[in-house]
Amino acid sequence: MARLKPLSGFPEFLPQGQMVENHVTHILEQTFELHGFAPIHTRAVETMESLTRKGEIDKEVYVVNRLHAEPGEKPNPNDHLGLHFDLTVPFARYVLENSGHLSFPFRRYQIQKVWRGERPQEGRYREFTQADIDIVGSETLAEHHDIEAPLVMLEALERLHTELGFPTVTMHVNNRKLSEGFYRGLGIEEPAAVLQRVDKYDKIGPAAVKELLTGELGLSDEVADKCVALAGICTSDSSFIEQVRDFGVHNDMLEEGLYSLNRVVGAVNREVPGRMVADLKIARGLDYYTGTVYETMLSGHESMGSVSSGGRYDSLASDGKHTYPGVGISLGLTRLLAPMIGKGSIAASRSVPSAVLVAVNTEDDREVSQHIARQLRSRGVPCEVAPKADKFGKQIRYADRRSIPFVWFPGSVHDGVRGDDEVKDIRSGEQVVARADSWNPPAADLWPTVVGTW
Amino acid sequence: MARLKPLSGFPEFLPQGQMVENHVTHILEQTFELHGFAPIHTRAVETMESLTRKGEIDKEVYVVNRLHAEPGEKPNPNDHLGLHFDLTVPFARYVLENSGHLSFPFRRYQIQKVWRGERPQEGRYREFTQADIDIVGSETLAEHHDIEAPLVMLEALERLHTELGFPTVTMHVNNRKLSEGFYRGLGIEEPAAVLQRVDKYDKIGPAAVKELLTGELGLSDEVADKCVALAGICTSDSSFIEQVRDFGVHNDMLEEGLYSLNRVVGAVNREVPGRMVADLKIARGLDYYTGTVYETMLSGHESMGSVSSGGRYDSLASDGKHTYPGVGISLGLTRLLAPMIGKGSIAASRSVPSAVLVAVNTEDDREVSQHIARQLRSRGVPCEVAPKADKFGKQIRYADRRSIPFVWFPGSVHDGVRGDDEVKDIRSGEQVVARADSWNPPAADLWPTVVGTW
Repeated sequence: MARLKPLSGFPEFLPQGQMVENHVTHILEQTFELHGFAPIHTRAVETMESLTRKGEIDKEVYVVNRLHAEPGEKPNPNDHLGLHFDLTVPFARYVLENSGHLSFPFRRYQIQKVWRGERPQEGRYREFTQADIDIVGSETLAEHHDIEAPLVMLEALERLHTELGFPTVTMHVNNRKLSEGFYRGLGIEEPAAVLQRVDKYDKIGPAAVKELLTGELGLSDEVADKCVALAGICTSDSSFIEQVRDFGVHNDMLEEGLYSLNRVVGAVNREVPGRMVADLKIARGLDYYTGTVYETMLSGHESMGSVSSGGRYDSLASDGKHTYPGVGISLGLTRLLAPMIGKGSIAASRSVPSAVLVAVNTEDDREVSQHIARQLRSRGVPCEVAPKADKFGKQIRYADRRSIPFVWFPGSVHDGVRGDDEVKDIRSGEQVVARADSWNPPAADLWPTVVGTW
Repeated sequence: MARLKPLSGFPEFLPQGQMVENHVTHILEQTFELHGFAPIHTRAVETMESLTRKGEIDKEVYVVNRLHAEPGEKPNPNDHLGLHFDLTVPFARYVLENSGHLSFPFRRYQIQKVWRGERPQEGRYREFTQADIDIVGSETLAEHHDIEAPLVMLEALERLHTELGFPTVTMHVNNRKLSEGFYRGLGIEEPAAVLQRVDKYDKIGPAAVKELLTGELGLSDEVADKCVALAGICTSDSSFIEQVRDFGVHNDMLEEGLYSLNRVVGAVNREVPGRMVADLKIARGLDYYTGTVYETMLSGHESMGSVSSGGRYDSLASDGKHTYPGVGISLGLTRLLAPMIGKGSIAASRSVPSAVLVAVNTEDDREVSQHIARQLRSRGVPCEVAPKADKFGKQIRYADRRSIPFVWFPGSVHDGVRGDDEVKDIRSGEQVVARADSWNPPAADLWPTVVGTW
């Protein structure tokens, strides 16, 4: 095999990094399950029809083909497959496919890889893990779920903050009805086109957005100014309502959006004060959102962009007869973790799960060491047996290279009697007599821990 | 969206089935980590060069292409990608790519999906989950790891037996050196061709194998008979050695294989009696195995074929300068679980994690119920709040449909004072006064349990 280089955009971790991802995944799973979200996985592929039906041309799809498809094979439409680019489209398909077997409202979480065939030169991820929660109803879904979904995700992110030292977050929320109603109230006929351009506010700034609105969409200076000014409104309380009303724009959909956004921001901040702001420039690129939309910034790392986004989609899952409206939020796990793991700023405390290396006196005594290891494991102590009956100094170095804290020395045999076992803490050098059927490492050393500095 | 049918070969589970897969995955992870195996994930794609270099033309590969690759884009060889068909080839590549950052022997486990573009009509899985353990050394790897790998996998399978009622297993082991040495001792020059045909022994029977050997390979009747007779040897102790010796075939590689196989079967059976047999027809289709090979049968379900297979590969991971010999075993998780989950023979005890549904008195009181739920969760009790302030009978039916065992009724307010909360076990009907800051469900009800009948 030739020299190998990592594939750009497909991050992989060393074990100490993988343990971080696993640990964070475990925190997310636990939080979601405490809130009654059930786990599902969906297949990696969807039909191209399903992946492209919402006009998602900017999400570059990876097409999947069988290498050995026979020439005579019937062109089965199910064989036009692509890798999913998010977990929402597959979830909507799953709900339609299984609606007869699910109880609604249906609450699920899903932590899986997704793929996007981004241009290679941009250094963006082509494979990454997302953690999604969604709630879907049958025909209707009460608005309080727009409050519940962000509260669950904020609780998960709060645990990452308190338990692992991640920065705190602020969730920025808008309601598409508010923006669309405002644009319509200004006489704009294609609000979606305005929304798309306002979505670039953070990236290109208000002046450039205004230029797009006047240049590309032909809006008047005055109308464009109002659209840009609306996007500039960001408040942590209900004062955004007054600021919007000051424009003097009247529209029913605008009122609906104002009411709904106020309800969400108020309820979330009553439960977790200071974690949510009404931010009227939030638009979300995806076409399927119809109401509340969420983005989440890491305090002090706003330039990373949103690490957790989502929204309400009232018609994504529909088979013509039945509609399953939903609301959900997705956490970009790889986006959140990969840069830190890559820099080594966060890692597990050792590169193996083992708390103990059981030394081997001679190769003939290997089964003695295996027996000790089995006793330790039966009481939940992770351990491994030294691969070679080297001199003890070399066996200790084997443990040290992996940051295994303890080395176990089986008692040596004299006149057919095995002496006492001893265990050494190789950090302090302390060595004590120990029995494999009762000794335990300190709780803090039992499993690798995750430590990081942001 | 048109009517949806599941894609053949891409199994997906309802939540109660997904919880089974998650539970089994957790048992596997825990077992592997207790033995010091570190977790890694590899990307889903490999270069086509890497996927096809071992002549794996019969593993049908899914090719992956960007939908929007620009016409002018440079044809980067890294863009000829396919989905991995196992976890061993990606692991070998990972080891080469990261060898400078790993400590050898390196022990890892990996639980991920793999893809095979099988012919659709065969009803085989095109996407399935494998759980692999491997140990690789740098330049050399001691033979005792050929004993360790099956012991770890057998321990995991034993837990599935004792904890979840899965059938017991028997691991069938051979050594390729034994077979190849025997064939060479008979004067056969292309032992690999014989091995490939002997691999079909279980599927087509000894007579048909003999026909292939005489017909396709032109072996004499006598030589073919001996090859078939060798494949028929299967013993639970070292008596296979005598049976092989009785053929009077002499070859150094054969002796090496006999010695090594005897050592593995003896050591494993000393630790877990009756779980391993020497079975000289085991060949494994994959080209990269060079020594010990393993297959595992479920007792009473032998027709399913092997649920856990692997072997020793001495030269899979090599960059020309350095070689990383390894031994590993893969468990076919989907193969093991999907038929049972599909039939509903094994399922979680409820379709949601929630142990408690907190009822809602009126929509205005929703935050009271949310507060109760928060208190329960803070003490680790999974719960959800009723989606609608329906009549209590309807809220109880919501819990019942999901097999949530408890419904919590917040005390109603009289003259500004909230009365006692009560919690009802909806299975027995028993209802008691309870406080959200102290009540706990019985331990057996806290989380869904997995129950099955094989």
